[in-house]
Amino acid sequence: MGRSVGTEITVLDGDQRSNKHDELVGEEPLEIRVTSDGRTETLAVTMRTPGNDFELTAGFLYNEGIVRSRDDFGRITYCFDRQIEPEQRYNIVTVELRTAAADLSRFERHFVTSSACGVCGRAQLDSLRALGAASLDDDVAIAPRLLYELPQKMRDAQRVFAATGGLHAAALFDEAGATIGVREDIGRHNAVDKLVGWALFNGRVPLRRCILMVSGRAGYEILQKSAMAGIPIVCSVSAPSSLAVELARQFHITLVGFVRGEHANVYAAGDRIMEEPPKTRVSAD
Amino acid sequence: MGRSVGTEITVLDGDQRSNKHDELVGEEPLEIRVTSDGRTETLAVTMRTPGNDFELTAGFLYNEGIVRSRDDFGRITYCFDRQIEPEQRYNIVTVELRTAAADLSRFERHFVTSSACGVCGRAQLDSLRALGAASLDDDVAIAPRLLYELPQKMRDAQRVFAATGGLHAAALFDEAGATIGVREDIGRHNAVDKLVGWALFNGRVPLRRCILMVSGRAGYEILQKSAMAGIPIVCSVSAPSSLAVELARQFHITLVGFVRGEHANVYAAGDRIMEEPPKTRVSAD
Repeated sequence: MGRSVGTEITVLDGDQRSNKHDELVGEEPLEIRVTSDGRTETLAVTMRTPGNDFELTAGFLYNEGIVRSRDDFGRITYCFDRQIEPEQRYNIVTVELRTAAADLSRFERHFVTSSACGVCGRAQLDSLRALGAASLDDDVAIAPRLLYELPQKMRDAQRVFAATGGLHAAALFDEAGATIGVREDIGRHNAVDKLVGWALFNGRVPLRRCILMVSGRAGYEILQKSAMAGIPIVCSVSAPSSLAVELARQFHITLVGFVRGEHANVYAAGDRIMEEPPKTRVSAD
Repeated sequence: MGRSVGTEITVLDGDQRSNKHDELVGEEPLEIRVTSDGRTETLAVTMRTPGNDFELTAGFLYNEGIVRSRDDFGRITYCFDRQIEPEQRYNIVTVELRTAAADLSRFERHFVTSSACGVCGRAQLDSLRALGAASLDDDVAIAPRLLYELPQKMRDAQRVFAATGGLHAAALFDEAGATIGVREDIGRHNAVDKLVGWALFNGRVPLRRCILMVSGRAGYEILQKSAMAGIPIVCSVSAPSSLAVELARQFHITLVGFVRGEHANVYAAGDRIMEEPPKTRVSAD
């Protein structure tokens, strides 16, 4: 996968629907390995858009204080292990450090963890299955007009956003569009975790027949959490990533993006979006 | 610190400037600890907005496949260690797992790492200083009108965004507003790492007298990277977090948010924003 990935989507416009080709932003894990004193270690795995990977690696190492100048770098290479699948080779970057003994000991505990594993998108999805996520078979179906109302319902339920303008939100709705709960956080993924934690405390997980709405983009992490929590419909006001769409299709999660006004794009499992009944036409003749 | 934090800011409106009180979205690290079989381990440190911390912890553990139901939870508590500073106590949550032997062994390598450390904002900033970040003394000064033009210049320099609508961008400008480079990624922090990596390869780090512009919000991570890379002016089109503002003030980084049209908010080190010369008034009398 590259910087962008082509796919077919369904466009909802008021009561109309049509199919079109669309470009998704590429998302794949990148594993950053460092060789120092003859020892190779994995320092980080980060979800990123492929492209400028050596720059990303160098900037990351500099910004974390691992290297202090250009001179600290020896060779920077993609993985050339023949045992690794070709599609994974561009997801591992190895840096030889010239600095005698880079102090990597502090690294582990200095790093925030976040959810993702493996070194290619397909491996991520396999490991999610191993953790217990399964394809969702909820036969819930919602009308496009119900979708169009969700962003405003989410804003109505938010409390802090109006004051600071700096928070992401995640909201849960039932299949009739009634608000179940909303949570806010500077991190979109935290807002989803808060909602799922609330549901767990209240005996409502898995969140069958529910709709999750998130502000901003829908990346891999949001869909991963939705798959684990059993949420069959996920909506966002912005774009999903390539890996989010792949995950949604594999786990049969209805994924809707760009919900704005009376418009939305359906990227996966569109069978849960009802066809509108054809309007009765009054002819002028 | 809580969900939101009050502060004084400078508002730029065309050629006018004024001071006002503003609310920032709270951002603090949360350390998630798990006790299983009598052993306590740190599973994750995540930057979050304080509030609903037990829900966040429970949802995180569920979404990562560590717990399968409500019954797996024993007590959930904030840290009550008296040796820990009071302000840190609400940044550590410990969960007793009832499941006999939760398999945490896979955890470490299954987690994406990202940059942050310590268990309170102040500790984060101290550790940044230990890594070599210092207060920036660049005496560069820019006019408000130069600021107002940066978002459009960044968009002009972006390539993928127009196609996918799903990418974050980071752009570097010199003090005259000329574009030095732009990078895109699904992760805002990756876009900044890519820029800094490029600069490092080209012998341009530290990025003295430069301006960094990012799409979306400016959280702790963006400012941490800016401090390490020596960037004296950071702008975003949206809101900064409380910890981002605190970092910017400590390291004397000019932090500007909500750059939209002829409007911007200055949160830190406003001495680098030039006063406009008073306009010559032609009286109608």
